Amino acid sequence: MPIYTAPIKDMQFLLHDVLAVSEQDIPGFEDLDRDFTSAVLEEAGKVATEVLLPLNTVGDTEGCTLENGVVRTPTGFKDAFAVMKEGGWTAMDCDPDYGGQGLPYIMHTAAQEPFVSANMAFNMYQGLTHGAYSAIWFHGTDDQKQTYLPKLTTCEWTGTMNLTEPHCGTDLGLMRTKAEPQEDGTFRISGQKIFISAGEHDMADNIIHLVLAKIPGGPDGVKGISLFIVPKFLVNEDGSLGARNGVSVGKIEEKMGIHGNATCVMNYDGATGYLIGEEHKGMRAMFTMMNEARLGVGLQGYAQAEIAYQNAVAYANDRLQGRDVTGAKNPDGPADPIIVHPDVRRNLMDQKSFVEGARAFTYWGATLIDRAHKNGDADAEGLISLMTPVIKGFLTDKGYEYASAAQQVYGGHGYIEEWGMSQYARDARITQIYEGANGIQALDLVGRKLAQDGGKHVMAFFELVKTFIKENEDNEALKADFLDPLKAASKDLQAAGMYFMQNGMKNPNDALAGSYDFMHMMGHVCLGLMWARQARAAMAALDAGESDTAFYETKIATGRYYMARQLPATAMHLARINTGSETVMALEAANF
Amino acid sequence: MPIYTAPIKDMQFLLHDVLAVSEQDIPGFEDLDRDFTSAVLEEAGKVATEVLLPLNTVGDTEGCTLENGVVRTPTGFKDAFAVMKEGGWTAMDCDPDYGGQGLPYIMHTAAQEPFVSANMAFNMYQGLTHGAYSAIWFHGTDDQKQTYLPKLTTCEWTGTMNLTEPHCGTDLGLMRTKAEPQEDGTFRISGQKIFISAGEHDMADNIIHLVLAKIPGGPDGVKGISLFIVPKFLVNEDGSLGARNGVSVGKIEEKMGIHGNATCVMNYDGATGYLIGEEHKGMRAMFTMMNEARLGVGLQGYAQAEIAYQNAVAYANDRLQGRDVTGAKNPDGPADPIIVHPDVRRNLMDQKSFVEGARAFTYWGATLIDRAHKNGDADAEGLISLMTPVIKGFLTDKGYEYASAAQQVYGGHGYIEEWGMSQYARDARITQIYEGANGIQALDLVGRKLAQDGGKHVMAFFELVKTFIKENEDNEALKADFLDPLKAASKDLQAAGMYFMQNGMKNPNDALAGSYDFMHMMGHVCLGLMWARQARAAMAALDAGESDTAFYETKIATGRYYMARQLPATAMHLARINTGSETVMALEAANF
Repeated sequence: MPIYTAPIKDMQFLLHDVLAVSEQDIPGFEDLDRDFTSAVLEEAGKVATEVLLPLNTVGDTEGCTLENGVVRTPTGFKDAFAVMKEGGWTAMDCDPDYGGQGLPYIMHTAAQEPFVSANMAFNMYQGLTHGAYSAIWFHGTDDQKQTYLPKLTTCEWTGTMNLTEPHCGTDLGLMRTKAEPQEDGTFRISGQKIFISAGEHDMADNIIHLVLAKIPGGPDGVKGISLFIVPKFLVNEDGSLGARNGVSVGKIEEKMGIHGNATCVMNYDGATGYLIGEEHKGMRAMFTMMNEARLGVGLQGYAQAEIAYQNAVAYANDRLQGRDVTGAKNPDGPADPIIVHPDVRRNLMDQKSFVEGARAFTYWGATLIDRAHKNGDADAEGLISLMTPVIKGFLTDKGYEYASAAQQVYGGHGYIEEWGMSQYARDARITQIYEGANGIQALDLVGRKLAQDGGKHVMAFFELVKTFIKENEDNEALKADFLDPLKAASKDLQAAGMYFMQNGMKNPNDALAGSYDFMHMMGHVCLGLMWARQARAAMAALDAGESDTAFYETKIATGRYYMARQLPATAMHLARINTGSETVMALEAANF
Repeated sequence: MPIYTAPIKDMQFLLHDVLAVSEQDIPGFEDLDRDFTSAVLEEAGKVATEVLLPLNTVGDTEGCTLENGVVRTPTGFKDAFAVMKEGGWTAMDCDPDYGGQGLPYIMHTAAQEPFVSANMAFNMYQGLTHGAYSAIWFHGTDDQKQTYLPKLTTCEWTGTMNLTEPHCGTDLGLMRTKAEPQEDGTFRISGQKIFISAGEHDMADNIIHLVLAKIPGGPDGVKGISLFIVPKFLVNEDGSLGARNGVSVGKIEEKMGIHGNATCVMNYDGATGYLIGEEHKGMRAMFTMMNEARLGVGLQGYAQAEIAYQNAVAYANDRLQGRDVTGAKNPDGPADPIIVHPDVRRNLMDQKSFVEGARAFTYWGATLIDRAHKNGDADAEGLISLMTPVIKGFLTDKGYEYASAAQQVYGGHGYIEEWGMSQYARDARITQIYEGANGIQALDLVGRKLAQDGGKHVMAFFELVKTFIKENEDNEALKADFLDPLKAASKDLQAAGMYFMQNGMKNPNDALAGSYDFMHMMGHVCLGLMWARQARAAMAALDAGESDTAFYETKIATGRYYMARQLPATAMHLARINTGSETVMALEAANF
């Protein structure tokens, strides 16, 4: 039986010891004191463990079913969704003008993690709704906001995002879905969209589809794409539900994982749509939400690694097999628990040091989003825009890798569905693909973000690392184990950037062939920085005489592991990058 | 619809250009000329593509079912099994005295690959049978051989290996299955075995279980384990089938993959068993077969990456999305095929350079097994014994990694079961676990094999690398791209070995904490050596004016990619190893 306990202590440590949220000059942050955040996170953890976790296997096993156009979610999902709504978990950072609680995004992010760990497929129904909410909040008219936001805030209605078509995923310029203008100002939407998460289901009265489509006669390519609201049921003037709109589900996909979420083929047959934002500016509207959405996917990546890790630790403490080579640890038992074996430890430390670093990175990213939105801080906006592909790409690649590594701790039992470890890996696998496949994240990072605003943001990041090292160089305890490795890794990253600058102009492939390595390299440097910050905070807490010394000492030891065992990867990535594109591009396509 | 074509050209290149099999002084190798091996491999490829491939999805979707003690295999499996039997594919390297064809093991290995790529779950039925065949051939009495081998050779009867119990996997010393001696010289076997592949099914008249069990009163731990033949139906004197034995299937496991193979819980209730080999020497009998079995699993790892790669290449050439940044390659189409993009290439080159290196490594390993068995060559035996954990551990870790990477090429379609890419990854996942989980392979390598016979075999390996470099140092074309990187990687590996020697005596954990990294490092050096050998052979073929220049040039370019982009991993592994066990072992078990 899978277990899960929300890592409240680590979350509180990050919010208060590391990020000092309540001292930040961001509107709303002043209310985030220890007691408040603890109460919220404890409650979120309770819902996750008691309500969502038991449904995770159910969702995986039953999946969703489509019969006569009706999609049924797995047993228990409806009731659990009611719990989420009633608890206000869908409305945390939503606008109070539309029924939300108006909390900072960091609080939403922190509270989401337990839900995602305990039941990722289930949580996507509200996750997608949050995306639709944001699109309308940022780009809708007052009228649209009044009509849709209150219901999306409460998840009485849920939302979807419709981008992909059978022949177009990354390259949205190839889109064929049409939006024909009508005399009454509405549009008739026709076309087929695929891979629509939560596209149809039985947990909400209405489903608000946000659909990208082309208005005939507009510019070619992505410049001719507009964004539309297409409700499943039209909404009357008085807010009541009207006629069924011309949108229907064609099929539910059989997937590797996230079976509890209905991934639908959606057919639009002259459905009524309402333009949101400006004509032909649909891509811009989508981009507004991208930092948030991608940070959310990065969180999914490490949150799956977290629950997989928790179960792996429990198994490693429980399973008796072999003896500690340095002397029996359980002499009265038939064998020692496998956690005594160095290679099992290596595996668990890889997982633990990644997850805690990833959580810090994600929280930091969330505060940057808050600062960008609430303070209108362009530097924060630039920095999170640079970090977004790293958060998404690196945390999901590693999240999958470590969910799979946790499965390995179980030996043969890890391959049997009954034990639950396979599901974490299968569910995590999608995070590397959706919301922009990770190769696209790497392209975004190296092809766009590095050079954005004249390279200002990447310079700011290097400055940040440098300043941290400089400010702490008198800290002997930090220097050898944290600052020196961070400096070396950061130097590798700069050297890679330099290589791109010197070679990418002449031959862009020399930069693009190294983009994936660069994304991983930057991920390691970011987690290295996060670990140095966490270690400093833990040392300060110990110096201040905080009582839970085991927690802080474990924190420092885990950080030392990351710096010693993970950061050396940057040199390998640099070596690869420095070979340029020649061996990558050498073959004719026919010779693969 | 998944595709697969057996890579005959590459197989032939390895057998003849690289390994020069027909010139080896190993009995039976003299018959392996180009025409003969080509005819065999072409035919194996045909069976794989035409008979087994169409059943791969069927097996995954239908799985096996258990009803009233009867296990049914997926639709079509029975007919396909008949094709395998009639074609003699189950008997290639079996002893002619028992109806086999007596071909070298290298030929069996090469012919197996297409079967494994096209349908791994299906091929396991004969794979396990081959294991049972070998156990009886090596350790059985003449009588036992006469009774069982002819039927196992033809797969009229199939075989299984019964090691694992619910509470004991790696640590077989904890085994509880009992074998009570009877007056007639037989034993009564009682206990439960789990994870028994092909444990019960409807494709053979009899199933011959090889079962590890303890004879009461024997030594404790693994020293008290004996090996028994436990047939599903007892065999009469005249060879006809007699009474049903006291063995039955309790359950079929629901697994992440290899659904087409019935993974059974087997219950032994006083079943009649026949001792094979000596009492209490069951582990020794198992070890005899281990090099072969583990090489077979390593092959499964890269063979899944091979079919995944083939499909990824087809998709990358077919899928139109985006434009080549250096200029449109398909200007008349709506977009370029995604194979133009550097990061897609990087991914495909990673896969291709791994698979071809892995195939060479496996073939070389198979010839070492032939030399050890047929020439009684102790050095070859020692070398393959050293290489076995690397072949098994490294090739399956990377096989899974690249099957998953191939899935990524498909974007969202890779996550949908219909496209088949998920299955290759899910099927490959088991190879990292069974036949000794990869952490155990690393332990075997560093804890046993390095020091075996006074370190003689690892010295021999280093000598082999050194000699190759020395013999070819005048080859300018080879030097910079192949010999220099190989030398550097080999130096890293030696430094790691040195670290273990200097520190492992004082604290064995300092060696064991680096065991997994060492296994990967050694895998890279082995593949580096294989690539250098392949490049030399390809260059020689070009010099000799061979006509298929595209093949040889592609071979060299793929090797250059591996040396430039993969070998730098050794430095990272060395850096990790050099940090010892301190950060790995720092935490109390309670603080994970």
